[in-house]
Amino acid sequence: MAQSARAIRAERATLAEGAHLAQTALERDIKVQAVLLRAKGLNNEAAALLEKFLQKGVQAFVLDSLLFDAISPVEHGAGLMIEISLPTVQRPRAMPTDVLYLDGIQDPGNIGTLIRTAVASGVHSIASSPECAHFWSPKALRAGMGAHFAAALYENVKPQELRELFDARILAADARGGSDLYLSEGWEAGHTVWMMGSEGQGLSQAALAVTDERLYIPIDHDCESLNVSAAAAVCLFEQRRRRLTQKR
Amino acid sequence: MAQSARAIRAERATLAEGAHLAQTALERDIKVQAVLLRAKGLNNEAAALLEKFLQKGVQAFVLDSLLFDAISPVEHGAGLMIEISLPTVQRPRAMPTDVLYLDGIQDPGNIGTLIRTAVASGVHSIASSPECAHFWSPKALRAGMGAHFAAALYENVKPQELRELFDARILAADARGGSDLYLSEGWEAGHTVWMMGSEGQGLSQAALAVTDERLYIPIDHDCESLNVSAAAAVCLFEQRRRRLTQKR
Repeated sequence: MAQSARAIRAERATLAEGAHLAQTALERDIKVQAVLLRAKGLNNEAAALLEKFLQKGVQAFVLDSLLFDAISPVEHGAGLMIEISLPTVQRPRAMPTDVLYLDGIQDPGNIGTLIRTAVASGVHSIASSPECAHFWSPKALRAGMGAHFAAALYENVKPQELRELFDARILAADARGGSDLYLSEGWEAGHTVWMMGSEGQGLSQAALAVTDERLYIPIDHDCESLNVSAAAAVCLFEQRRRRLTQKR
Repeated sequence: MAQSARAIRAERATLAEGAHLAQTALERDIKVQAVLLRAKGLNNEAAALLEKFLQKGVQAFVLDSLLFDAISPVEHGAGLMIEISLPTVQRPRAMPTDVLYLDGIQDPGNIGTLIRTAVASGVHSIASSPECAHFWSPKALRAGMGAHFAAALYENVKPQELRELFDARILAADARGGSDLYLSEGWEAGHTVWMMGSEGQGLSQAALAVTDERLYIPIDHDCESLNVSAAAAVCLFEQRRRRLTQKR
């Protein structure tokens, strides 16, 4: 599970490291299968959380420190991991909702940050192409800082399936052309699917083929591009700004 | 140099990995002291760049692959690194300019991304507190994707020195309070210093003490906070949006 997306899919479970995720799991009543503890170096915060899990009847296992470190996604963590069941999500059918769609993004840290940014911007559905890194890897989960638990996550979605799944206009963040994000009007109306491509490659042809509107961020000429997490933050929060300021 | 910020400061030089940074160094006429090549696995793009450096009279060294991998900031890179001199920057005195100020941010990848995002937003001066990770570490340089070369970078700046150095209003990105970023008017006028704090800690007391205006990003209640790079992207691009749309 620590190393393999296949194991996570087969077991329908993953590892969440650290006090913050453990705390979030408690608050949101996530199904926790086991608590793993590092033999040496459990801090007070982690010890307090352990007690809460034991009170709930969750089994705890103490791992040799070398073993714990080998499976932990971070180097100097809290000495506590939980094994959690993945939520079951049904594929929607023309669901009217806002979506962030990730096309070919392979870095687990980026995946987690993108989920976090989407949820913070009010977008709770996130879908990813078959080429993307796994949403539920321990590294992505760690970078998501709990946002995974507030999101509906759809993996293995091809661009040509987006219209079937969601009832929303499809917007492409595309540094290579289209309209200026700030000058173009009305794209925030109704529901949207914001598509973000991988660094270097950008959006795939398949993604561009289903696009309703291409938008670019007008960046300074001294810089070639933004990193995908920064670009998503800019687009999703411009959407949020427009909706919040129009409402008021 | 690969491992130690002290060595980078002492030598006034650092290592830049990959074809993109090498290409940028050539375009911007950065002083390159040496080219380092991996004994095995130089790709065509890197080979073409090597030729250009050799034509300019730069010395090249071939490193054993194990040694190269040990000092490279990425795992599967292009097999090419360059050693570059750090630019000399004078401390400014009440300079009227836009600034991003980083307070206690320790992850080198975040540091690089923040520099890239600032330059993309039109903010070319970046300053950091003594607690921050080094701007010029190979990892930060790699994450900056060339933005370092388009920026004026000031390290070891205490919050209480900001007014001496820059003639600009000081804005604090503070999740704990202040005014709504989108509803507050006029903060983008003139020049600004945008201060960003570390994840978890937020801005230090010293930073809050020099603040002219505190602003928060109105995030969804399902999420506690944004990662610092995403928060900076939102604030700096809201500044850019306001300035671009007012001009037109």
